[in-house]
Amino acid sequence: RIVIVNLPSCFLQGILERLDAGEIVIGDGGFVFALEKRGYVKAGPWTPEATVEHPEAVRQLHREFLRAGSNVLQTFTFYASEDKLENRGNYVAEKISCHKVNEAACDIAREVANEGDALVAGGVSQTPSYLSCKDKTEVKAAFQKQLEVFMKKNVDFLIAEYFEHVEEAVWAVEVLKESGKPVAATMCIGPEGDMHGVSPGQCAVQLVKAGASIVGVNCHFDPETSIETVRLMKEGLQAAKLKAHLMCQPLAFHTPDCGKQGFIDLPEFPFGLEPRIATRWDIQKYARKAYDLGIRFIGGCCGFEPYHIRAIAEELAPERGFLPEASEKHGSWGDNLSMHTKPWVRARARKEYWENLKPASGRPYCPCMSKPDGWGVTRGAKELMQQKEATTEQQLKELFQKKKF
Amino acid sequence: RIVIVNLPSCFLQGILERLDAGEIVIGDGGFVFALEKRGYVKAGPWTPEATVEHPEAVRQLHREFLRAGSNVLQTFTFYASEDKLENRGNYVAEKISCHKVNEAACDIAREVANEGDALVAGGVSQTPSYLSCKDKTEVKAAFQKQLEVFMKKNVDFLIAEYFEHVEEAVWAVEVLKESGKPVAATMCIGPEGDMHGVSPGQCAVQLVKAGASIVGVNCHFDPETSIETVRLMKEGLQAAKLKAHLMCQPLAFHTPDCGKQGFIDLPEFPFGLEPRIATRWDIQKYARKAYDLGIRFIGGCCGFEPYHIRAIAEELAPERGFLPEASEKHGSWGDNLSMHTKPWVRARARKEYWENLKPASGRPYCPCMSKPDGWGVTRGAKELMQQKEATTEQQLKELFQKKKF
Amino acid sequence: RIVIVNLPSCFLQGILERLDAGEIVIGDGGFVFALEKRGYVKAGPWTPEATVEHPEAVRQLHREFLRAGSNVLQTFTFYASEDKLENRGNYVAEKISCHKVNEAACDIAREVANEGDALVAGGVSQTPSYLSCKDKTEVKAAFQKQLEVFMKKNVDFLIAEYFEHVEEAVWAVEVLKESGKPVAATMCIGPEGDMHGVSPGQCAVQLVKAGASIVGVNCHFDPETSIETVRLMKEGLQAAKLKAHLMCQPLAFHTPDCGKQGFIDLPEFPFGLEPRIATRWDIQKYARKAYDLGIRFIGGCCGFEPYHIRAIAEELAPERGFLPEASEKHGSWGDNLSMHTKPWVRARARKEYWENLKPASGRPYCPCMSKPDGWGVTRGAKELMQQKEATTEQQLKELFQKKKF
Amino acid sequence: RIVIVNLPSCFLQGILERLDAGEIVIGDGGFVFALEKRGYVKAGPWTPEATVEHPEAVRQLHREFLRAGSNVLQTFTFYASEDKLENRGNYVAEKISCHKVNEAACDIAREVANEGDALVAGGVSQTPSYLSCKDKTEVKAAFQKQLEVFMKKNVDFLIAEYFEHVEEAVWAVEVLKESGKPVAATMCIGPEGDMHGVSPGQCAVQLVKAGASIVGVNCHFDPETSIETVRLMKEGLQAAKLKAHLMCQPLAFHTPDCGKQGFIDLPEFPFGLEPRIATRWDIQKYARKAYDLGIRFIGGCCGFEPYHIRAIAEELAPERGFLPEASEKHGSWGDNLSMHTKPWVRARARKEYWENLKPASGRPYCPCMSKPDGWGVTRGAKELMQQKEATTEQQLKELFQKKKF
Repeated sequence: RIVIVNLPSCFLQGILERLDAGEIVIGDGGFVFALEKRGYVKAGPWTPEATVEHPEAVRQLHREFLRAGSNVLQTFTFYASEDKLENRGNYVAEKISCHKVNEAACDIAREVANEGDALVAGGVSQTPSYLSCKDKTEVKAAFQKQLEVFMKKNVDFLIAEYFEHVEEAVWAVEVLKESGKPVAATMCIGPEGDMHGVSPGQCAVQLVKAGASIVGVNCHFDPETSIETVRLMKEGLQAAKLKAHLMCQPLAFHTPDCGKQGFIDLPEFPFGLEPRIATRWDIQKYARKAYDLGIRFIGGCCGFEPYHIRAIAEELAPERGFLPEASEKHGSWGDNLSMHTKPWVRARARKEYWENLKPASGRPYCPCMSKPDGWGVTRGAKELMQQKEATTEQQLKELFQKKKF
Repeated sequence: RIVIVNLPSCFLQGILERLDAGEIVIGDGGFVFALEKRGYVKAGPWTPEATVEHPEAVRQLHREFLRAGSNVLQTFTFYASEDKLENRGNYVAEKISCHKVNEAACDIAREVANEGDALVAGGVSQTPSYLSCKDKTEVKAAFQKQLEVFMKKNVDFLIAEYFEHVEEAVWAVEVLKESGKPVAATMCIGPEGDMHGVSPGQCAVQLVKAGASIVGVNCHFDPETSIETVRLMKEGLQAAKLKAHLMCQPLAFHTPDCGKQGFIDLPEFPFGLEPRIATRWDIQKYARKAYDLGIRFIGGCCGFEPYHIRAIAEELAPERGFLPEASEKHGSWGDNLSMHTKPWVRARARKEYWENLKPASGRPYCPCMSKPDGWGVTRGAKELMQQKEATTEQQLKELFQKKKF
Repeated sequence: RIVIVNLPSCFLQGILERLDAGEIVIGDGGFVFALEKRGYVKAGPWTPEATVEHPEAVRQLHREFLRAGSNVLQTFTFYASEDKLENRGNYVAEKISCHKVNEAACDIAREVANEGDALVAGGVSQTPSYLSCKDKTEVKAAFQKQLEVFMKKNVDFLIAEYFEHVEEAVWAVEVLKESGKPVAATMCIGPEGDMHGVSPGQCAVQLVKAGASIVGVNCHFDPETSIETVRLMKEGLQAAKLKAHLMCQPLAFHTPDCGKQGFIDLPEFPFGLEPRIATRWDIQKYARKAYDLGIRFIGGCCGFEPYHIRAIAEELAPERGFLPEASEKHGSWGDNLSMHTKPWVRARARKEYWENLKPASGRPYCPCMSKPDGWGVTRGAKELMQQKEATTEQQLKELFQKKKF
Repeated sequence: RIVIVNLPSCFLQGILERLDAGEIVIGDGGFVFALEKRGYVKAGPWTPEATVEHPEAVRQLHREFLRAGSNVLQTFTFYASEDKLENRGNYVAEKISCHKVNEAACDIAREVANEGDALVAGGVSQTPSYLSCKDKTEVKAAFQKQLEVFMKKNVDFLIAEYFEHVEEAVWAVEVLKESGKPVAATMCIGPEGDMHGVSPGQCAVQLVKAGASIVGVNCHFDPETSIETVRLMKEGLQAAKLKAHLMCQPLAFHTPDCGKQGFIDLPEFPFGLEPRIATRWDIQKYARKAYDLGIRFIGGCCGFEPYHIRAIAEELAPERGFLPEASEKHGSWGDNLSMHTKPWVRARARKEYWENLKPASGRPYCPCMSKPDGWGVTRGAKELMQQKEATTEQQLKELFQKKKF
């Protein structure tokens, strides 16, 4: 039994020192989904004004991830670019500026990170400016604005995440790279590649060439699919004789049935995804597979709650040599059931049981898989884009509206 | 559109004044499951020492339920009787006494309740003493000890909850009733009744005769089954010409397949229940059905997260005339999707869509229903009990052990 | 290994002699469904004019059931009353009279029965006359007309089957009883009883009092539900101190989700029932359960193909001491797989494998259960009938039509 | 409404004349599965000695397919090579020679074909000789022996079907081609190709070069997968600038979850496949898709019952201008339900209803998909074959046996 629960001093090192030394770095989970369920984020806009409105809620979630084993706390700055907050933020009181949201996010993350020596990563994500075809300068300016806060607050490194188009991701990396801090970049794509049809391998190559030291995927797809996408990225990098660390932060939802654009198009998104939620055992399998592929920055995205992150830390405890603090309240593979009064519940206190369990849904009137919405449209979209009639989602939307979709 | 989000002054009234006036009282959700996922409670023992170890985590969860619409905050004193904490608490540092756990729980609940004028309810639950056949005096002493803290901390009313045996529940009510404060009592039973075969109707009658002003069920079964059990309680009370308010705090898991002892016996308990988690729409249906049956104290138990409580408050907003604070971050029936860029996601911004959605599990290798474990045993138990060989679960356990189960 | 495949001489005895001696009598399977799939019966009308139009097809199906182990061949006279053939038979050439259909049915059954010493049972079923509120005399006349043919052709005994209303079933038994031949009577009801709310126990009592020597159920429900209904009939007879042999001829479809009126109301009826078809192993379990309850006339109805009947005969071979002819082409519990070239297919050659297999549907977009259509109507129907406004299905239909259902 | 049900005179033409003229030719269904359920074929060996033992059963099944719309009746000579009958036929009386089985099969097929002017196709299938690595001469001799009977009985054309290895299929075509009669060739492969890894496109090319005028697939996979395989064959032929007619005779089971070797490896094979059985509507979709791809010889294999063949004929009736005889007993898209007494059953008398129905399994404890057995082995097999250690299944088997699989 592995018993060390205090973090070793090596954690004071930077992200690249750690990865270069072969360490496993555990990311955190998904803030917008977790805080939506806690009542602080609005589904749809998914903007992070809670950093200003309810810092205690954001702080507590950071703390739970830290306790669960996260070595990196991402600032809660998802969709916190100025254009996005303006675009969708009309329900938020005017006084909450983009600047304030980003600053508060940095302060909260740093405060909690210090409780456990975790690293703070400043994060940027895709912008409405890009989707509405603003030019490179304008899009880069949005990232630049967030970066200024990150530099002022001296985050440890930077993550460009949740990009559907590699072109925009490259622009983000270029901006972040100027800071001199290490840059990680993840795209929310599956094995079919980005929305312009660039393959995962090519995406990885472009991101590394732009300056990213760590590349991979986040969000949109389940762990199994995401690992497959990272595998393709790894192959692409090998073929191009490029080196980078690999990173994976998938959904904690089972989505074998989703199409190219991921879980957004599933009929259950975003308010009926419960039956798809991964168990802790599903996540242990994911952690093992990710490790086996050579991924060393392993975390989660939407759907990941603290106990999912703990599952990564527990699965990889033999390799790491220690368990996270929250494992004080968790037995390995259910061993804390061994003292239950009922013999048949005691019988569940073993790895084979949970590893092989096929959990029932309790929903006999529901199917196992869904047909993603908008398939026809998506195909149409691809064709339209190939015909150069539409190059952005915005144009696409207009084209479809003309067709009275 | 209903827009009032501040709590009206009538909330300063006591629980019975409110129920007598016909108001809907919204309970809170399940602490042990929610805090287990957040890393503060150990599955198996399920004890609440977090009130002392990590008060900030308990406080934050109370706050989220308050914000979601809870009018009652239950002290996090589940399984906080001295015998239970001793029995299973060997992993907790000796210094955390039963007294301290209960006091801290009261303080935290009151602190948060004051942020929104909610009521604080002190809660007791079934004891190992009863299950190991200690006599009435000894069992009552355990409840008495917790009650002393509740009186010192001046909670607003008392709840005896999670009883599998009506005999013990009656003892609890008798103890609590001496305080002079209103007493609610809920059993964790289904339509088949308590573990000695007492029907729900008879259980309700005994509890009301013992002094409970509010009766119902909590935990162990899904909303649909729990409402059916409360219906049987209502019928029992009517037949006996007794009056009491009705209360329901079910699981937020779908469990159509569980047997007499509820979800404990399902193979998925407690670490594989994810596919069974209720959506917010499932909970809205539950709230409506509960209301239609005449239940006016409507809350949840294990599996209920803050957004599930908000769903109750939103469903019953027309009757109540106001929405909870957390509805600032939630559109009715998904209406916040109406500004999504994809037309097929916008098409989900309506009640008919979510009401009729049959959400897929994304798990094609898993079944919809499970056979509960221990069925043979349960049946054997019933027969043994009928043969008067065993009258308690403890005796039963011994009998089975002799048989080398 | 049981090897006797020739039928013992005792088979020359009559149905009651055999049942009185404690023998197991195996019925046949469902003709209308089997012949619909073979192209000779029209779904909807379900009438048996194939006895005249395509005697070779009817003969072959009888032969297959005989070979599979049936000890009773029912004349293919389902829905062959004059009113029914007229009512729905407009697509059949005028020249095929009710008389001819019934005569041909008797001739074919007898011809095949003689190939193996099986008994021939003449069968009548519910009539449109009853449903359209014709009086007792008129309804009885319809049965009388069929009986005349059965007497002329000298069938061995008579079966009144597929009755939703015990009143009509009693009339049928009364008519058949006058013949002096043994009479069996089965209703197509579930545990909730007949369409007027008469319980299974009461139905059984009325049928035995009217003269039936064998009572039970056929069609409309799956094996498990049907056995439960027969159990209730048995209890009713015991309470009334009446004696009769028990009989069960259920569907070979899984229908745990159907309502009071059985599989007709399931959305899959009649052209989408395939995923519900029972395996041979399901039927072996049914045969064992039926036997254990004391049922000794064990057969099937819609969905039962020859191999399902063989499964009954194989399951009960230890009790009976012999196997049917068709077992020459079938190994017990898959033992004929033991010489397969693939080791993993050979591993399926054992009872535990097939007994425990949970067969997948290969249909991940389909649910496991359906909501029966017409539920509201059925409930409304019950209330209307209780209010004495409607006492027949016809009146009910009219009432609903007025309400513009 | 299309009403012509008599077969036009053009049916007297040969298979190639008809296909060359652009006609749709409908094949028949699967004999071994249908006759296994009727009690005449033993699962495991799957040999056709019923042609001698029970000609009436074989004749009746041919007749049902003819009536359902089949334009081709295949002789029931599946696995009727001498080596196969010897190999597995130890349970069959010695006196039934390979010669007799083949002759009887031809006689029966011709007798029924004459009842409706259908064509008779003599069929050969893969041999144990090939699998046990006999040389080309020996394998060809087995086909030659069957061909002699086919020539003597003057069948209309020849089909080489159910080949897992294109090499053996080519040998079969070479033998059959010498007869001067048209030759069709189908392999039981999926999109991954034959057991040596030859792609579907390459298989098609080799078969056409060997002399086949019609190529495609039969058995092992569901309609959707089979159509995809034929699509790949079509692409292969186009790339090679070869011309041939396309043919498809898939399973009537849903098998989205099977691996390279098809449904044999599914845990449900062969006695638990019921929940996977295709509805008539599934088959109508298949017929339409097959037609749209340009396939003009459209039939079925295991699982196809007469009503499935009728579904092909009904779906393509607009193109063909006539319906089969058995459509006298079938309404298009359930229209015969329009006169049902219950309004909610009448509501099912329309195409949209059945087309969109997602039929429930009635099996809530069963999953939707299975993991094929022997996957590890199959993968191992592939690697072994790639390493040139094993080139046949027989060698493979031996290798695995050495490893004590």
